[in-house]
Amino acid sequence: MWYYEALFNDVRLALEGKLIYGEKTPYQNLQIYQTSRLGKILVLDKMTQTAEKDEFIYHEMVTHPLLLTHPRPEKVLIIGAGDGGVLREVLKHDVKQAYLVEIDERVINLSIKYLPSLSKGAFSDKRTRLIIADGAQFIRQTREKFDVVIIDSPDPVGMAKVLFTRNFYVNIFSILGSSGMMIRQTGSTMFQPNELQENYRIMKKIFPFVTPQLAAVPTYIGGFFSFIIGSKKINPPDVPYKLIAKRYAKSRLNTKYYNPDIHFASMKLPNYLRRVAQ
Amino acid sequence: MWYYEALFNDVRLALEGKLIYGEKTPYQNLQIYQTSRLGKILVLDKMTQTAEKDEFIYHEMVTHPLLLTHPRPEKVLIIGAGDGGVLREVLKHDVKQAYLVEIDERVINLSIKYLPSLSKGAFSDKRTRLIIADGAQFIRQTREKFDVVIIDSPDPVGMAKVLFTRNFYVNIFSILGSSGMMIRQTGSTMFQPNELQENYRIMKKIFPFVTPQLAAVPTYIGGFFSFIIGSKKINPPDVPYKLIAKRYAKSRLNTKYYNPDIHFASMKLPNYLRRVAQ
Repeated sequence: MWYYEALFNDVRLALEGKLIYGEKTPYQNLQIYQTSRLGKILVLDKMTQTAEKDEFIYHEMVTHPLLLTHPRPEKVLIIGAGDGGVLREVLKHDVKQAYLVEIDERVINLSIKYLPSLSKGAFSDKRTRLIIADGAQFIRQTREKFDVVIIDSPDPVGMAKVLFTRNFYVNIFSILGSSGMMIRQTGSTMFQPNELQENYRIMKKIFPFVTPQLAAVPTYIGGFFSFIIGSKKINPPDVPYKLIAKRYAKSRLNTKYYNPDIHFASMKLPNYLRRVAQ
Repeated sequence: MWYYEALFNDVRLALEGKLIYGEKTPYQNLQIYQTSRLGKILVLDKMTQTAEKDEFIYHEMVTHPLLLTHPRPEKVLIIGAGDGGVLREVLKHDVKQAYLVEIDERVINLSIKYLPSLSKGAFSDKRTRLIIADGAQFIRQTREKFDVVIIDSPDPVGMAKVLFTRNFYVNIFSILGSSGMMIRQTGSTMFQPNELQENYRIMKKIFPFVTPQLAAVPTYIGGFFSFIIGSKKINPPDVPYKLIAKRYAKSRLNTKYYNPDIHFASMKLPNYLRRVAQ
């Protein structure tokens, strides 16, 4: 049996595997497949969110570059990410509080049950503050300030669309501390080329420093997968290599993808992306 | 209609498209598909070789890093690569001769007909010397010396297996000039993890300097796609950035993926690959 992702209508990653759980939650259609190549995968509304075998790439790259660039990340806000993978990586750092705001509690409970290696107990860490709520609304209403904000949203379709508007970024900017930084994924650089470009343009009008970042993830097809970083005070590529390497060594992150060389290499863009970030 | 690659038995890139030409050549089953996402693709024995839309990534990365690292690449040998993409990129440099040794003439003729943007007239360039022959045998028998050898082979299955043996590398070493360098692809770092590792181990016993290099190519699924460089005298990561940038500017390559930043970034390995290259 084969699983076919439905993100694109003319190109798909086909994975040999079988459905082991399915449920219509109040927010979305959630499925867990067992695949032979990528282990168990979490699928929301027919779009693959994460896979056991390569989730480390996305989760390390959406956390460590920021948490090692910020001089003292004490309070972190994670939007979405109910599978717990981002939280697991954030808690490897010496943070004081990690807020996780997920709209769909079923994603959390079913990920803990079927994909326990993602959260690895992170939800019961005493630094975790779990909030079941709409992420955009939380950001609009909170009076808290954060050092790092990580948006772990799906692609800009359906209910996730609001997480890609100018207002959303303005609101994130306003809850960030003076050295605050945010990051989000912006899809495949070759199959969704507008995502990085559009978010770059919007963010560039709000954040003094905007930096694209790349990684290669088997689950997310289409060549380089992209992230975008918005920063209030620190320009990530300007931070000295030695400082990142020192913080990395001190943090004992035990990473499987990320290292200080990859940190800086991931910010170098192939020519076809250079016009995007101008 | 959909095209499914058969390289792996449990994971495939599925492309919406249709077969526009098929032929059993004396050596292999050759097909051309028209796909909506990646343009026309060349398929040999059910394995995708190249696609119009993203071939620039592979072809730039298998040529320019070497041709800009070598102090004076005058004579280049290309094995395989009947589609002409490697030759096209090699001829952008100020080389004196480019030998292309392809065993299957039908690949050349049908690529010129169906994928003309790949060779773009390179086969009729006066610096090109086209030889229809077995590449391994050519390397074993030739008395010529080359500055750069590019092995553009399929994966190590079927008749390509001989292109992955210790003897093959020993023979390449012996036809390289004193600053000579070679490169080849070694597949997906996550779906074919042994390829890079095994070739690294073999090459390390023959070449003083062996350097893995990465790129992200949509057509080749499985995260980072890898290459491996063997060098007799120059260690590629040790060449100063400024020198590569100067040669790049002078060569006016008009690249779509490669640039001097990518040159060095592509040699940085994520942690899961560091044990491979030790």
